[in-house]
Amino acid sequence: MRLSRYVLPVLKESPADAQIVSHKLMLRAGLIRQQAAGIYAWLPLGLRVLKKIEAIVREEQDRAGAVELLMPTLQSAELWRQSGRYDAYGPEMLRIKDRHDREMLYGPTNEEMVTAIFRDTARSYRDLPRTLYHIQWKFRDEVRPRFGVMRGREFLMKDAYSFDMDEAGARHSYNRMFVAYLNTFARMGLRAIPMQADTGPIGGDLSHEFIVLAPTGESDVFYHANWERPAELSAVDFDDVAGLQTIVSGYTADYAATDEKRDEAREAEAGEALRQSRGVEVGHIFYFGTKYSASMGLKVQAQGGEEVVPHMGSYGIGVSRLMGAIIEAGHDDKGIIWPDAVAPFPVGLVNMRVDDAACTAAADALYAQLQAAGVEVLYDDRDERGGAKFATMDLIGLPWQIIVGPKGVAAGTVELKRRATGEKVDVATADVVARVAG
Amino acid sequence: MRLSRYVLPVLKESPADAQIVSHKLMLRAGLIRQQAAGIYAWLPLGLRVLKKIEAIVREEQDRAGAVELLMPTLQSAELWRQSGRYDAYGPEMLRIKDRHDREMLYGPTNEEMVTAIFRDTARSYRDLPRTLYHIQWKFRDEVRPRFGVMRGREFLMKDAYSFDMDEAGARHSYNRMFVAYLNTFARMGLRAIPMQADTGPIGGDLSHEFIVLAPTGESDVFYHANWERPAELSAVDFDDVAGLQTIVSGYTADYAATDEKRDEAREAEAGEALRQSRGVEVGHIFYFGTKYSASMGLKVQAQGGEEVVPHMGSYGIGVSRLMGAIIEAGHDDKGIIWPDAVAPFPVGLVNMRVDDAACTAAADALYAQLQAAGVEVLYDDRDERGGAKFATMDLIGLPWQIIVGPKGVAAGTVELKRRATGEKVDVATADVVARVAG
Repeated sequence: MRLSRYVLPVLKESPADAQIVSHKLMLRAGLIRQQAAGIYAWLPLGLRVLKKIEAIVREEQDRAGAVELLMPTLQSAELWRQSGRYDAYGPEMLRIKDRHDREMLYGPTNEEMVTAIFRDTARSYRDLPRTLYHIQWKFRDEVRPRFGVMRGREFLMKDAYSFDMDEAGARHSYNRMFVAYLNTFARMGLRAIPMQADTGPIGGDLSHEFIVLAPTGESDVFYHANWERPAELSAVDFDDVAGLQTIVSGYTADYAATDEKRDEAREAEAGEALRQSRGVEVGHIFYFGTKYSASMGLKVQAQGGEEVVPHMGSYGIGVSRLMGAIIEAGHDDKGIIWPDAVAPFPVGLVNMRVDDAACTAAADALYAQLQAAGVEVLYDDRDERGGAKFATMDLIGLPWQIIVGPKGVAAGTVELKRRATGEKVDVATADVVARVAG
Repeated sequence: MRLSRYVLPVLKESPADAQIVSHKLMLRAGLIRQQAAGIYAWLPLGLRVLKKIEAIVREEQDRAGAVELLMPTLQSAELWRQSGRYDAYGPEMLRIKDRHDREMLYGPTNEEMVTAIFRDTARSYRDLPRTLYHIQWKFRDEVRPRFGVMRGREFLMKDAYSFDMDEAGARHSYNRMFVAYLNTFARMGLRAIPMQADTGPIGGDLSHEFIVLAPTGESDVFYHANWERPAELSAVDFDDVAGLQTIVSGYTADYAATDEKRDEAREAEAGEALRQSRGVEVGHIFYFGTKYSASMGLKVQAQGGEEVVPHMGSYGIGVSRLMGAIIEAGHDDKGIIWPDAVAPFPVGLVNMRVDDAACTAAADALYAQLQAAGVEVLYDDRDERGGAKFATMDLIGLPWQIIVGPKGVAAGTVELKRRATGEKVDVATADVVARVAG
């Protein structure tokens, strides 16, 4: 993409209303623009990141065996009356009346709708187990939206729902998502720590929040130093019930808790290894038994012919919020440092002298070669000073910068800079595509 | 995807409330499920088609030089007061009050918001021309939603907006979209005919509806028989102003008009070649000058330093509606016939005898080979009668069916069926992957 044809409205100054670093940088780097309190437009660069995050979430859901569908944003109040939540839900639910005065709402979550869909389509044990998920815009009418996309009102969420014949099956479905979540966040360069969370009236230990450490996080968290090891992908067979349980048990052996769920005995046990930080919740998984299936009349026939009320769980990931969390975890005083996996473009190409024919010819040729090699590249071909171009590249945080200047062109080289480390090396122009395409 | 792990609730009977064939087939083939009047959930198979349509629309927008962003679904009433449309818009606009009693609305279109974003970010002639687009859910509170996704309330739309320094520039931007639209629809196997449409107070000839012929269409259309030639892709340089105009002029030379815009003289000229049919609108493009830029205070600095009010156009494609149009154009009495480009899976694999070890081993092996070859395949591995499996495959309309039965397996062959023609051939098992991957 040529920057001369793109829309990248970077800002020199941090907007006054942005309090946390991710919000400031998302505004400054031209990723988002506020349209109303807690409601944002995703500008072209921000949308590219959002789509990369979404794609990783989708791939890991698919890998774990979940099946994607897409539920609408608006729902009928009637549906929520069936579960009893229409009156119970607070003012965060945006209630709407249509032209015929029918009561509707903008979905803050989808337990009711997915349970109704499953109820109306599943017949027997052959239709279970299933985990259904969708990635859709939700709305929660926060009384005081803030921190940009971290606590917005309209937000993109992946929510999955599992249906099993019994509690043992539900635990396996839960474990699938547990491991899928760790893999999802690890691919984005995030160490997300699963922490026991409140399960409400169901009880048991089957609820975890996945929390990314960040000094500007919303809640205090306490964890064992073992969690400071880098996140790794688990190569697992998601159908292996015992194997998956072993992995989950391994992860949960190390202490980690939010403020509300601290355990003095386990903290004493951790001793010197106990750590305290602040954290951002990026996912939440939850087993809730037959709460919705029972209230909404979901029943299926078991192999023996008897009727069974399926056990359910729900599993959320804040897709748009993740962008804020990734920036909180990866930035410096010059701007954002994107992990390769979610960078809007892996490569930025800078023509230092648009008015120099040889320099422009070399940059144009590299641009064509990068595109031919399938490398997504943002090409700064604007007639601007070099200093402004460098500042923009550092601000928007593309992993690699290729800088084409007249001196280098004369010598057959370009400068290759790694954003994360600041390291710069001169590379033969002929070799640079292979270096960044690797 | 193994059907034993998928969610595909096909129906034997057509639901009584579905009047047109696309609506019936979308319900019967398990593509959608109604959640409220004019509001649908996209079941897994339907979502796959929706994403393929969306991907083609996106690719052709990108090819034409449009830049993607994403605007939110909810907008503030304040924005629409700036253009004067808040009070002018009818009851199709879904008006909402949030918890602080602020007036909001669910966007039926985005002229106001995109103009505000451009106003707040563009500074000078360097920032133009630009065409911005997004693919987002919209809501129009139809008084009587019907025909399934063809006239729903919550629907997915691609809307693009062009910003140019003058009318000549705007005409070129218009021509880009004109050709991009023809290519978009042609890739989906659709002959969409551009027909002059009302331009409202602006006047001129710069508004076209793109209409797909279908006997169940909503409007009468009249056109020259030349339009019956198959749709072809135009390989064009979208920056070539004169070349693009020539292409557009070529297309518009053949008469085509909706009921409201009939031209007696041109119909007489067409004579015997005049055709009449019904049609479904799948796209609409529109030049509207400075209507929104002027009312919303969008100005940029020209090269000479003076302030210029940019000329704008808007360009819509009904992404979810297109699925209905494609089915209207491609089906028989057995079900849907998907064009290859938008088929949810290009290949269906049927194991005729799940209880036959050799048959199942052969089908499993083919499934693995197809996946390894990167072919998306829906594998009917269920313990069902062959007749039911055939009926499901024909109903859901995958372009290729590979049928694995005990006799063929013994002979080293499978049956390969082309859904569109019904043609069946025996193919050596070793060759079939290459045949469908081609």
